[in-house]
Amino acid sequence: MNKIYQLIIAVLTGSLLAFTASAQNALVTKELKLTSTEVLASSQATDWRLPEQRNLMYVQVSNTDAPVVFELAEDFAPKHIANLRTLVKQKYFDGLAIIRSQDNYVAQWGDPAEDEGEFRTLGDAAETVEPEFYRAKKGLALQNIVSRDAYADEVGFVKGFAVGADAKGRNSAEARAWLTHCYGALGVARGMAMNSGNASGLYAVTGHSPRHLDRNITLLGRALIGMEHLSTLPRGTESLGFYKTAEEATPIVSVRFGNELPTEQQIHLEVMRTDTQIFRDYVAARTKRTHDWFADPVSRIEVCNVNVPSRPVSTHSE
Amino acid sequence: MNKIYQLIIAVLTGSLLAFTASAQNALVTKELKLTSTEVLASSQATDWRLPEQRNLMYVQVSNTDAPVVFELAEDFAPKHIANLRTLVKQKYFDGLAIIRSQDNYVAQWGDPAEDEGEFRTLGDAAETVEPEFYRAKKGLALQNIVSRDAYADEVGFVKGFAVGADAKGRNSAEARAWLTHCYGALGVARGMAMNSGNASGLYAVTGHSPRHLDRNITLLGRALIGMEHLSTLPRGTESLGFYKTAEEATPIVSVRFGNELPTEQQIHLEVMRTDTQIFRDYVAARTKRTHDWFADPVSRIEVCNVNVPSRPVSTHSE
Repeated sequence: MNKIYQLIIAVLTGSLLAFTASAQNALVTKELKLTSTEVLASSQATDWRLPEQRNLMYVQVSNTDAPVVFELAEDFAPKHIANLRTLVKQKYFDGLAIIRSQDNYVAQWGDPAEDEGEFRTLGDAAETVEPEFYRAKKGLALQNIVSRDAYADEVGFVKGFAVGADAKGRNSAEARAWLTHCYGALGVARGMAMNSGNASGLYAVTGHSPRHLDRNITLLGRALIGMEHLSTLPRGTESLGFYKTAEEATPIVSVRFGNELPTEQQIHLEVMRTDTQIFRDYVAARTKRTHDWFADPVSRIEVCNVNVPSRPVSTHSE
Repeated sequence: MNKIYQLIIAVLTGSLLAFTASAQNALVTKELKLTSTEVLASSQATDWRLPEQRNLMYVQVSNTDAPVVFELAEDFAPKHIANLRTLVKQKYFDGLAIIRSQDNYVAQWGDPAEDEGEFRTLGDAAETVEPEFYRAKKGLALQNIVSRDAYADEVGFVKGFAVGADAKGRNSAEARAWLTHCYGALGVARGMAMNSGNASGLYAVTGHSPRHLDRNITLLGRALIGMEHLSTLPRGTESLGFYKTAEEATPIVSVRFGNELPTEQQIHLEVMRTDTQIFRDYVAARTKRTHDWFADPVSRIEVCNVNVPSRPVSTHSE
């Protein structure tokens, strides 16, 4: 690879990778204003958590050997996640398909059947589920970040998930909190009826975050790895990115929760904890952008640009 | 296509398409609070403008027969655009390649050569160009929108381009304005030196908007059509999305300005004017989201979710 371009772009990205030499210079010259790379390098084992395999959903699409792995947020959508577990246990999604890929919006998967009579049965899963568009802010350990958000009074993180919340105070019974539609967010398609989403149709955000959907549809979690297998799918040419023919739709090989997989197929990831000083330092670094490449201090951040880090672990800890 | 899913998702998207029946119901029951679909349907010919072919850059990538078409914003980066015109006139990009595709970030094209000695010559184009990271707000007809933006004091539009600005008042000599890194934004790669971007390396935003780059790198404009040809490119597996081997890089067939193309190859697009009442109505509709599908009034918007419409025109007007 062209080294000059690598340098040009490396510094452009504010990436977590590389630049040890320049980062060390920055450490000296910038009076300990750390870059996010340096913050990560300084993290301890206890700054990371291992998601439970039962909360990891592996979506295996036929265009790749590697799954997309989503972590589910049971604090936000326990009823939909329970229904999804029932569907997955029945192997509901196996052999279904990506039915829609709309540029700068979402990829969606589910039953590609043309007529209602041909739909795969939901089996033991419910046809309707009460909406979980938001929950009470009370009882939630929200780690706020300093950000002037376009869509929420407050924003922050809960166990790695980007969250918006009402600013009515932590103890108000009315204050709500909700998962946000950042890139990689996993949601439940629904119709006009608020309870018509049952998790048999799912979508992931593949473009700029459509935050106007926040509090209007149930989100379940977010992708930890493999989003590129959904974001690079050919776009459908029908309206809203639906595919014109069944042949264009990419088949879903299988959907499984991690605890249903043979050990050798489990992927072991750790996610940076978001209730720690290291996370606050990480957000501060992503906010300030002290790297010498930056001409103008940024000093601002948006919740969907925080990108809570995850990484593979080499040993099984379960 | 599955009609029930189409309905489910159609209403999910808040798209510009379809729903005439339900939209008309909304018109009656919601006391003339229009949806964006209805606003567009009510637009007149004079609400649209035809970009000049000389300001349209056609990027033909080898993975498709259709070009990506960018509109350039000479009000913001006249020096870089002049250098780019010189490069394109020399057919500088023809046979070069997409050298990088990083998920949820950018696709970048330019010279894939490994060593500096192998680089294609810039010919009559300059090696360095003065930074155009921002310009004076003064003299710019900025159509502000009401939005609490994470990265800029004020946001709005100039001739269809999303713009951030300082809140120092319209007549202050110090107040700056700049193009924002929304999805589809076109930028100039640069190294550590502020003047090291010369437009021989270009990138387009293919993920959630990396607004921390605003005012730190020169933006040239935005894509009007064809972004899917860049956003679906295979992601590079090296750090920052660079490709591991030259074989993985997708070749660039040609880059041309519209006025250099034979008439039959020109694509005639019109873009909604952003200095009109219809545009204010469109933004209001995208802000309020009065469609019955929405459970909770949104009443907020972010500049990168406005998506100024463009559409093909059937007759040549030049």
